Amino acid sequence: MHLADYPQRRFNPLAGEWVLVSPHRTKRPWQGQVEKPNLDKLPEYDETCYLCPGNERAGGVKNPAYEGVYTFPNDFAALLHDAPEESMNEGKGLFQAVTERGRCEVLCFSPRHDLTLPRMDISSIKAVIRVWQEKYITLGSDPLISYVQIFENRGSIMGCSNPHPHGQIWANEHVPDLPAKEDSRQRSYRKGHGTCLLCDYVQEELARNERIIFQNDSFAALVPFWAVWPYEVMILPKRHFASIDQMTDQEVTDFADALKRMGTRFDNLFLTSFPYSMGFHQKPTKPVEDPEADAAWHFHVHYFPPLLRSATVRKFMVGFELLAMPQRDITPESAAERLRSLSELHYMEQQS
Amino acid sequence: MHLADYPQRRFNPLAGEWVLVSPHRTKRPWQGQVEKPNLDKLPEYDETCYLCPGNERAGGVKNPAYEGVYTFPNDFAALLHDAPEESMNEGKGLFQAVTERGRCEVLCFSPRHDLTLPRMDISSIKAVIRVWQEKYITLGSDPLISYVQIFENRGSIMGCSNPHPHGQIWANEHVPDLPAKEDSRQRSYRKGHGTCLLCDYVQEELARNERIIFQNDSFAALVPFWAVWPYEVMILPKRHFASIDQMTDQEVTDFADALKRMGTRFDNLFLTSFPYSMGFHQKPTKPVEDPEADAAWHFHVHYFPPLLRSATVRKFMVGFELLAMPQRDITPESAAERLRSLSELHYMEQQS
Ligand SMILES: O=P(O)(O)O[C@H]1O[C@H](CO)[C@@H](O)[C@H](O)[C@H]1O
Ligand SMILES: O=P(O)(O)O[C@H]1O[C@H](CO)[C@@H](O)[C@H](O)[C@H]1O
Repeated sequence: MHLADYPQRRFNPLAGEWVLVSPHRTKRPWQGQVEKPNLDKLPEYDETCYLCPGNERAGGVKNPAYEGVYTFPNDFAALLHDAPEESMNEGKGLFQAVTERGRCEVLCFSPRHDLTLPRMDISSIKAVIRVWQEKYITLGSDPLISYVQIFENRGSIMGCSNPHPHGQIWANEHVPDLPAKEDSRQRSYRKGHGTCLLCDYVQEELARNERIIFQNDSFAALVPFWAVWPYEVMILPKRHFASIDQMTDQEVTDFADALKRMGTRFDNLFLTSFPYSMGFHQKPTKPVEDPEADAAWHFHVHYFPPLLRSATVRKFMVGFELLAMPQRDITPESAAERLRSLSELHYMEQQS
Repeated sequence: MHLADYPQRRFNPLAGEWVLVSPHRTKRPWQGQVEKPNLDKLPEYDETCYLCPGNERAGGVKNPAYEGVYTFPNDFAALLHDAPEESMNEGKGLFQAVTERGRCEVLCFSPRHDLTLPRMDISSIKAVIRVWQEKYITLGSDPLISYVQIFENRGSIMGCSNPHPHGQIWANEHVPDLPAKEDSRQRSYRKGHGTCLLCDYVQEELARNERIIFQNDSFAALVPFWAVWPYEVMILPKRHFASIDQMTDQEVTDFADALKRMGTRFDNLFLTSFPYSMGFHQKPTKPVEDPEADAAWHFHVHYFPPLLRSATVRKFMVGFELLAMPQRDITPESAAERLRSLSELHYMEQQS
């Protein structure tokens, strides 16, 4: 099939959705718009930042003088833990609602205001991974919680106005829609084929070697065949495991390596602190005894970055995308090729 | 159930999806941030606008000196009509793609650069509706086309850099994901209940009168119980019909009235030309003989507007929303209340 020539739909077997790819729209050779690198230097400590050590947050709470990773409950949590259990189902099912309880936490990756994950050293990134593991376990062991969503919004274009390196964790009473879809798709794939969907997928991608960006001993980073965002990326473990707490020590190190290298390539793409939403999909924490979940679920990372052509030109998911289905212009193969060609030395370090 | 007090999930029976509502996050009384109205006056004709009459478009084509509605094929169409029919299905279904053929058209609502739908008079809006009807019929009669998606992206925040009033039509070989979901949900509702999902819904909403914004003889405008965007709105016909070509003359007039009144209220909300993506969902044009489609499908309008608190403060659908499920802060009921309280005289006309 001429994937690079004509409009096509591609199927996302993990979510059960389609994406429209219009490769001819950017068949013209890459214009190589030369942007000036964004060399804005942030201070290591910013007295107006509510995430910096020692500073005051909303409601008058003061951050401790933390030195490593620091977590605290979100001051404007979208979920509450103590809410009455209520539900409604009226009018032939047209009016259905049910209480959603949970917790929202914030996780500062570093006390340094001017760092980002890719600019931190491996041992500091490993410390962040250790806290993600702990949070997955402790939040997930609450009998009320079925799913722990770990994510990072980076950049003001992603609604994140504070550059201090941080992520969020929302622990939910019910498994949210997208992980629930991935849950059922992975289970039915396993039923049908006797193998794990993402185990098969990562092997196929490594063999085809068209959309792989890089790999290390434990992980592969690739642009999925069904990518929606221009430079959408997944990081997949090569070994099968279902959740972040199941990583071996070696895998924790290799995961830190993969996050650093991917983040560096992203920043080098448009010479800017690359905006994205990034997060993990993994096994729901309930029900506790469910061996099928361990067999079906393959831990993975999604990056959803909006930029298309430069640090200022983004892809808009509007009109047709909101009403009909997602649409993209550049092919996943050409996006992978560009990301593959980039240096793994961060441009901020090249300059100095 | 305490819909205004605690976090809850609500179910969208039309798409089969859930939304997380966090009403406590904005329980504090409305701050009523007073914005200055945006009174920027655009010229009636802009010589640099590629949509104005007589001007040159990309590729050197010249627009005629059109006087009413003007349509032309999109110069950067995401769909092509002449593409070879190809498909692939490899690796246990993990690599599936199929050619998507179709047409993309642009539709200028008016030769006047400075107008918008709500600022046009009823007869001019009716002329636009007549062209939408024609396009639905002519594009849909092409044996290759199964679905005609009519939509409008308004505002630079929606990726629309040209204020000249215009919309788009993408005619697709396959029914896209979202209309396909609505198709199957409406059919199975009809199977289960013997009635039309949206006929039942609009009647229930009119009886409850909590989320209705306004109505006329033929249409009701409301914030759906399951709204995702802060001021998401649907316009629903009270009578059952499946597609825009099935409107009576009276309904065409009332539809123009509904579009004008809704657009005016939106603009008056934050005293700005309110950005949104708007579009119609209606019966697929294939298969041609399918009486069940006529019975199940209820024509309707969706508005997806991103603004949350003011002309500059928007809701970001990022992190949790991209990875897990949509989330909103204000309740649909309070959004409907605000929209209901607004004048139907456009603020630009109040000022003069
Ligand atoms: O066709 P336009 O106006 O160039 O583009 C706009 O609308 C399209 C259809 O909703 C989207 O795919 C684009 O991302 C958006 O920028
Ligand atoms: O929690 P924050 O950073 O205030 O808010 C940001 O992330 C949330 C979770 O992805 C989103 O719901 C908000 O729309 C976004 O602005």
